[in-house]
This record gives sequence, structure tokens and C-alpha cells, in this order.
Amino acid sequence: MAKVNIGRKILDANEKYALNNSELLTQHGNRCFNMISSPGSGKTTLLVRTISDLAGAVRIGVVEGDIQTDLDAQRIRATNAPAIQIITEGACHLSAAQVHQALQKLPLDKLDVLFIENVGNLVCPSSFELGEDGKIVVLSVAEGDDKPAKYPAIFAKSKVLLVNKIDLLASGALIDFNLERVKADARRLNKGIEIFPVSAKTGEGMSAWYDWLKGQLARA
Amino acid sequence: MAKVNIGRKILDANEKYALNNSELLTQHGNRCFNMISSPGSGKTTLLVRTISDLAGAVRIGVVEGDIQTDLDAQRIRATNAPAIQIITEGACHLSAAQVHQALQKLPLDKLDVLFIENVGNLVCPSSFELGEDGKIVVLSVAEGDDKPAKYPAIFAKSKVLLVNKIDLLASGALIDFNLERVKADARRLNKGIEIFPVSAKTGEGMSAWYDWLKGQLARA
Repeated sequence: MAKVNIGRKILDANEKYALNNSELLTQHGNRCFNMISSPGSGKTTLLVRTISDLAGAVRIGVVEGDIQTDLDAQRIRATNAPAIQIITEGACHLSAAQVHQALQKLPLDKLDVLFIENVGNLVCPSSFELGEDGKIVVLSVAEGDDKPAKYPAIFAKSKVLLVNKIDLLASGALIDFNLERVKADARRLNKGIEIFPVSAKTGEGMSAWYDWLKGQLARA
Repeated sequence: MAKVNIGRKILDANEKYALNNSELLTQHGNRCFNMISSPGSGKTTLLVRTISDLAGAVRIGVVEGDIQTDLDAQRIRATNAPAIQIITEGACHLSAAQVHQALQKLPLDKLDVLFIENVGNLVCPSSFELGEDGKIVVLSVAEGDDKPAKYPAIFAKSKVLLVNKIDLLASGALIDFNLERVKADARRLNKGIEIFPVSAKTGEGMSAWYDWLKGQLARA
């Protein structure tokens, strides 16, 4: 009778693809981050600015996940960065198998960082590993400061929280957003989370985010 | 051998509860609307203002769906309207069975309208009927004008689109939002959708929404 090692976790199909993606990315010296947020938090605008500002210093590729349209991949490609669009046709999150297919189409040897921009959804994508080195949650100040309390899973699991659209706070617009509450609630869920308040529109705060990203490079 | 009526749709468990909810609400003369949006579009603020502004004219109750916390139900109860909080503990949408339980706790005979504020998620809740007379999708201008194109299902299925936070457009804040694009894209998906640009903060545009709601009353 064969001995069964019950200490070893049995991987489901998604986890197997995720492990495979992780190994492939590591072989190519790529770091990979899975960006998750509500629709309209500014993920694509953040990526476009990050790619442009780090041109020549960090080589970035993007996998775009959307339910419909390739509008986001078009915006990324306008920066000359390689982008592969996955259209989920209704599915509320990316799967590791979908990302696996996209990886075959990317020039991984010519990249330092791969961002996966997940489907806009603060809930479901947090449950599906894609093979990333870490998750990055984006929260726009327009969404309100109660989101870590109300949607704890993604804040508990992320390496980084980008609090985006902070330019709106100084614009005179009627936005109630207490940054200190967000920081405290996020750190209660996740002691080690890095928090960068930024504006992808004006560039405010982006340099701290870039410093963090450069510190993550496999070749660093 | 019994005859099988293959023309009759076989209902799944959720649809059975939804039908049951619909019948119960109709018996009590209640109209019911299922509000769906991304996190932070302002659903609760919209409801709080609607309840307050229509006090004495329309009797409103609320079922609140959240992954964690009863913060939203507390905000509704501060208006003196009855509110039942459902905490989904991770689930990304409300089910008809959950709403069924909440209905037992509400004074349906004393209500005209029941709003169900779904979990903040522009994707999954659109697939689960709760027994409502119609869905209402809320889109904040801060989310961007590409959302009907990128998340078509909920715009195709809703009776009403509330475009919220329009005060931000006039505030001098850096927001790119073409209302005409949103209207055109939403009507391409759904010819009959009613579209109300509103600000739950300033009250702008709310009277058109109230007129529509009053026109829906069962006793009207």
C-alpha cells in the first residue's frame, strides 16, 4: 500500500496553472504583480503613467483582463509596452489558465515586470492566484474610506495599497475621505502592507511607488 | 406516461426563492428595486437622501448586502427607515434566499418601496434575480465613461441608470467623463433604460429620479 503524504496540499486546477506561471516568470527573471480594484479606480491610468515614467529603467509588460472590449490594452500599447488582452466574456475574474495563455504571447525575456490588470471587481479576483509575486490593490478616494472595512479580503492579501486620485481631495470637490482611517483599517488587516497615496493624473506621490517597484526587481 | 411540459422553464433554487419573494412583495403592495454598482458609487448616500426627501410621501425600506460590517444599515436606520443588514461573509452577491430571510423581518405592510442594496460589485450581482421589479445600476462619474462598454450585462438588464456624483464634474476636479458617451453606450445595450444624472450630495437632478420612483408605486 502506497504511503500518502497528507501534509502536501492538493492543488486545484487553477493553482496548478498559477504555480506553472510563477515558475515560468521566475525562469525569465520577471516579477509579476496582480492589480485588483473596483471598476474605475484608475488601474490602467496608473499603469500607463508608471510605464512612461520608468521608460528606460524598468521594462514593463501587461496582461489586461476585461469582461468586454480591448480598450485597456489599446491604452497600454500606446506607450509601446507589450500588452495582451484577455476578454473574459462575463467572467468576474481572471484565471491562471487564461494568464498562462497570455504569457506565451509576451516577450518575457525582454521584461523586468509583468503587471496583470485584473477584471474590475474588488471581491472575486482576490480568491484566484495567477502566479504573481504579489497583489496590488488600488482604491480611488472617490470610492470612500470605508472600503477596507467592507471588503477586507483583498486588503488582507495585498503587498501594496495604492490610494489613487488624491488630487480630488485638494480640488474642492465634495469627497469625504479620511486617509488615516484607510491606513489604520488596512494595517489592522495586514500589518506589512505598503501604502502609497498617489495621483496617476498629476504624478503626486508616484515616486515612492516607483522606488518600491524598483526595489522588487529580480535583477536588483 | 405523464406529459412533460417542456415549454415551462425549470427554475433553479435561486429563481424559486426569487419568485417567492416577488409574490410576497406583490401581496403586500410593495415595489422592489435591486441596486447594483461598483463599491463606492454612492448607493447608500443615494438611498439616505431619497428616503429623507420623500419622507411622508413614499414609505421606503432597505435590505443591505455587504461582505462585512453593518455600516450601511446603520446609515439607513439613522433616517428612521427600516433596514435589514445581510452580511455575506465573502460572497460577492446577494442570493434570493438571503433576501427571503430579510423579508420576514421587515414591516412590508407599512412600506411602498423596498430597495435591495446589493454587494458592491458591477459584475456578479447582475446574474442573480432576487424577486425585484427591476434593477437600478449606479455609476459614479469618478469611475469613468467606459463602464457600459466594459461591463455591459448590468447596463443591459437595468430599468434605471443613476449617474451619480455629477457635482464632481463642475468642481474643477480632473475627471474625464463624457455623459453623452455613457448615455449612448447604455442605450445601445438597452433601448428603454431610464437615465438620471444626479448628485446625492448636492441634490442636483434628484427630482427627476423621485418622479420616476413615484410613478412606479403599486398604489399609483
